[in-house]
Amino acid sequence: MSTMNRQWLLRSKPSGEVSRDNFQWREVPVTEPAEGEILVRTVYISIDPVQRYWLSEKPTFGPPTVVGQVMPARIWGVVEKSKSANYAPGDWVAGLGGWQAYCTWPAAAAERIPRWPGVPLIAHTSLYCMQALAAYFGLLEIGQPKAGETVVVSAAAGGVGSLVVQIARIQGCRVVAIAGTRDKCDWLTRELGADAAINYNSPTFAQDLDRACPAGIDVYYDNVGGDILDAVLARINPHARIACGGFVSHYNDTGAAPGPVNFPMLALKQARAEGFSCFEYVHRAEEAFSALRRWHEEGKLTYRAHVFEGLDSAPEALAGIFHGRNTGKGLVQVSAP
Amino acid sequence: MSTMNRQWLLRSKPSGEVSRDNFQWREVPVTEPAEGEILVRTVYISIDPVQRYWLSEKPTFGPPTVVGQVMPARIWGVVEKSKSANYAPGDWVAGLGGWQAYCTWPAAAAERIPRWPGVPLIAHTSLYCMQALAAYFGLLEIGQPKAGETVVVSAAAGGVGSLVVQIARIQGCRVVAIAGTRDKCDWLTRELGADAAINYNSPTFAQDLDRACPAGIDVYYDNVGGDILDAVLARINPHARIACGGFVSHYNDTGAAPGPVNFPMLALKQARAEGFSCFEYVHRAEEAFSALRRWHEEGKLTYRAHVFEGLDSAPEALAGIFHGRNTGKGLVQVSAP
Repeated sequence: MSTMNRQWLLRSKPSGEVSRDNFQWREVPVTEPAEGEILVRTVYISIDPVQRYWLSEKPTFGPPTVVGQVMPARIWGVVEKSKSANYAPGDWVAGLGGWQAYCTWPAAAAERIPRWPGVPLIAHTSLYCMQALAAYFGLLEIGQPKAGETVVVSAAAGGVGSLVVQIARIQGCRVVAIAGTRDKCDWLTRELGADAAINYNSPTFAQDLDRACPAGIDVYYDNVGGDILDAVLARINPHARIACGGFVSHYNDTGAAPGPVNFPMLALKQARAEGFSCFEYVHRAEEAFSALRRWHEEGKLTYRAHVFEGLDSAPEALAGIFHGRNTGKGLVQVSAP
Repeated sequence: MSTMNRQWLLRSKPSGEVSRDNFQWREVPVTEPAEGEILVRTVYISIDPVQRYWLSEKPTFGPPTVVGQVMPARIWGVVEKSKSANYAPGDWVAGLGGWQAYCTWPAAAAERIPRWPGVPLIAHTSLYCMQALAAYFGLLEIGQPKAGETVVVSAAAGGVGSLVVQIARIQGCRVVAIAGTRDKCDWLTRELGADAAINYNSPTFAQDLDRACPAGIDVYYDNVGGDILDAVLARINPHARIACGGFVSHYNDTGAAPGPVNFPMLALKQARAEGFSCFEYVHRAEEAFSALRRWHEEGKLTYRAHVFEGLDSAPEALAGIFHGRNTGKGLVQVSAP
């Protein structure tokens, strides 16, 4: 194995969109593991919209992002060397590794990824992961969808949204997926089984949403906030539930973004908007993963990762996720599994 | 009894604030009750902010407001003549009577108001009424306050707010009341037992709110929306609950009002904002009224009505409620009980 590490350090916090200029490439020797530590070779780096939010001046969750240090991100990798009794070379692990080719962790910083027969590592980045907990519990616990109800999902072609679409369909709901390109919309209806998919960049978006939701909207899984939230609020049914999973449309904002003008619809429709965090459901991960695995094995549910090749691509991968470049879960692949 | 009725007809729908010009005075003979009908003499007319909303072009709840017809409003009155086996002269009733001195109703349009020993009719306008259901169930079912938590109430000196303040105090919460004058704030702390009362017209409102909520905000009973909602959202604790009872600050708006820019705090704090309607709790009225009556008899809870004298005052009463002229429940008194 190489004894040199490759890293992306944070050079500056972005104002507006992230660019390569905000990061600095560095090559330094790998830190050899001390007693109780492991050396992990990064295979996949998670690329999520929320990482942009971590870089803003006012985040209230997420790891600290410090100029001059490695950009934080969740990674999945393989143990190369172990000085811990808990891990052996070849074990799969995940954790907060950051944008770098290797990480040296105390064993307690690693999370063991099980090797299930026939389940590749990439499935753990996209299906048996924190985002899947957000999709599963955000939809089922916060959204409380009932068969026959209309469920709308934004950023539906993303890592979270694409799972929400399928879980809602499995619950017997009418699923209306919102995405930003015709290709994504085609994927959502043809492969993921959405009843309708709408392009929010279309000039007929509002009419398309009306047409796709003839009986109004009962559940909205919101990944984006902004104008789409307002369009949905205008169409909610009494006792609608809005699962507030994220607000990607605001993560690049430099100032305060406008709030949803249709917020009073909550009062008018006796509706509920509720935030949640996947971290609060970690203790129930087994429940979600076993359901997802069963559905996957039964052919009812699929996943897709959008892989950007090579550590070098990380800045463009993060910037690109805000331009809708990814279909499915965003990943940077740093080495072979 | 007089055989002439006096009425305020809707002359035009207001743009912005309501004024006397939007209404037209008419005197016509009382309609004698037919078989199965009753003639009711109006004693009190309910004056609520939501009536302004009924007059806008886009309401999705409330009775129709039709130019040329009597302005709708809930009234409490006394049966003067009855051609129904269900009612006798002298009975107390309530219903959608409107801004007029008499109404002639099919018996089924009336709602019987019980005569409890020592309980005057005005108590039914302010304490054993729909607004009390909104206060009681909106706070307890939607807000779910726990002893020791901080509960913030806006429009706290109004009919709903003043009950919410007291019920929250009875639950053992720290109660922070928001109102628009120093007199109201004094009443809220001295007579209703709020732990702190804040004047939203003060230039130091934000700092005052910080000072009044040193441990953040767990429950917000929102009667107003707008800037106060944003100020509260900025200070919510994890898992906070916002009971969306109304959005008085928007009822005079002619166009779309700005939404809450701090809406993403719901996602960041895993918090919940939920609308509700008192009409959905009518079947549980007995539960609320018996608790309110017990607290009132124990001296733990009081009520106050702000009475505008005479049917003539109705337009100014409705306009005035938006200028904070009322302390407690707004009423127009048309005749003696």
